[in-house]
Amino acid sequence: MNGASDQASHTLLYGVGLGPGDPAYMTVRAREIIATADRLVHFCKRGRRGNARITADAVVAPDPAREIALAFPVTTEVPVADEAYSGPITAFYDEAAERLAAEMRQGRSIAVLCDGDPFFYGSFMHLWRRLAHRFPTEVVPGVTGMAGAWARADAPISWGDDVMTVVPATLDEAELTRRLGDTDAAVVMKLGRNLPKVRRALRAAGLIDRAIYVERATMPGQVVTRLAEKPDDEAPYFSMILVPGEGRRL
Amino acid sequence: MNGASDQASHTLLYGVGLGPGDPAYMTVRAREIIATADRLVHFCKRGRRGNARITADAVVAPDPAREIALAFPVTTEVPVADEAYSGPITAFYDEAAERLAAEMRQGRSIAVLCDGDPFFYGSFMHLWRRLAHRFPTEVVPGVTGMAGAWARADAPISWGDDVMTVVPATLDEAELTRRLGDTDAAVVMKLGRNLPKVRRALRAAGLIDRAIYVERATMPGQVVTRLAEKPDDEAPYFSMILVPGEGRRL
Repeated sequence: MNGASDQASHTLLYGVGLGPGDPAYMTVRAREIIATADRLVHFCKRGRRGNARITADAVVAPDPAREIALAFPVTTEVPVADEAYSGPITAFYDEAAERLAAEMRQGRSIAVLCDGDPFFYGSFMHLWRRLAHRFPTEVVPGVTGMAGAWARADAPISWGDDVMTVVPATLDEAELTRRLGDTDAAVVMKLGRNLPKVRRALRAAGLIDRAIYVERATMPGQVVTRLAEKPDDEAPYFSMILVPGEGRRL
Repeated sequence: MNGASDQASHTLLYGVGLGPGDPAYMTVRAREIIATADRLVHFCKRGRRGNARITADAVVAPDPAREIALAFPVTTEVPVADEAYSGPITAFYDEAAERLAAEMRQGRSIAVLCDGDPFFYGSFMHLWRRLAHRFPTEVVPGVTGMAGAWARADAPISWGDDVMTVVPATLDEAELTRRLGDTDAAVVMKLGRNLPKVRRALRAAGLIDRAIYVERATMPGQVVTRLAEKPDDEAPYFSMILVPGEGRRL
């Protein structure tokens, strides 16, 4: 039916975008692959199932013999520029890649389950750059978390000639303010403990009243609210802020 | 199985993201809706089938009784700021919305087929703002054309704390140059006859060697090439330029 499927017989490594969380937003190709790959790989925190694996529950039941959980050795509590983060995390990706390479050398196909889209701020990319030149690889694009968010927020993000900017909340406050003030539409990712800073930047940029806070879009426990009406600064990993564009209405 | 499906019984208007073109990249929810909606609506140029309708061929055979083709009255040959464009196109959306409203008042459900994602530079948005407050509506997010492009270009778009900017090629050259020079990763949309200008802007911003040209990503006739190696300035509607980010590798 399509190019992606035709190539599949020789492919060993799959990076599979599973979409924003609602399993109905998986692609047909993603479902095919996770139903048939020899090994399902997902990233997680120690002792917890990863979100992408939970999304996949709609298609594949838990199966310890088939699954490989890659538990991050450090959390986002440590600043990423810090050696205490980059050292262990680089070793983690090195070891994970070799573990998957060993499976593929046995002829086993590997599907790495990815939140959203594999090539948009994805952990998979760190495996991909270690493995894709060594094994036949297929990357299956997915619905991004932000597309799930703006759909559920009833907030078309970009109109006409709008410039749309995706800004990590990890930038410093002055830079966040500058970026937000210099775009027509924005998505602020990686909120976490950066929400107070992002709020100040949005206020300074004159955007606080246009900002929409979205948490766990398309998943159980979804929250959508105007940021100005959000009373606290709690923001879990799966949260973001949307500033919809106001471009050309026809 | 999911929230989206549970609400469906009362919904009349669906904006359905069909993804970048390969029908395998439709979501499960999109397939459900287009298989069952009473009316399938798509945008097109006069006398031609629209691209989203072609994508849907994998699921639904042509059926004149069920389909509504909305043919744009003017093409992109006229500058959008021009009254000669905005007048007829606004009347076109007004008339289209009333035509769909008449169907929905008869109780018929309407699925508007959208390239990529409905809320990301989508024509559907102009119907949505006329109809969504009047009829129960569901918007189904889709894989964007740009996600299809970076998957097929083997080009992860954003890493770590990269800022990613989506820039319409319709901006003037100085503004394009400034925007491209002030981001970590970029996607340039709406190329068409703007490609010579975009080339100059990328050169001025020092990015010409990082730029990837992608045409008809995931569709028959796909082209992926380094922009510096593209010998001509032909760029059809379904083309874009990617400037992948170079953020934190772990």
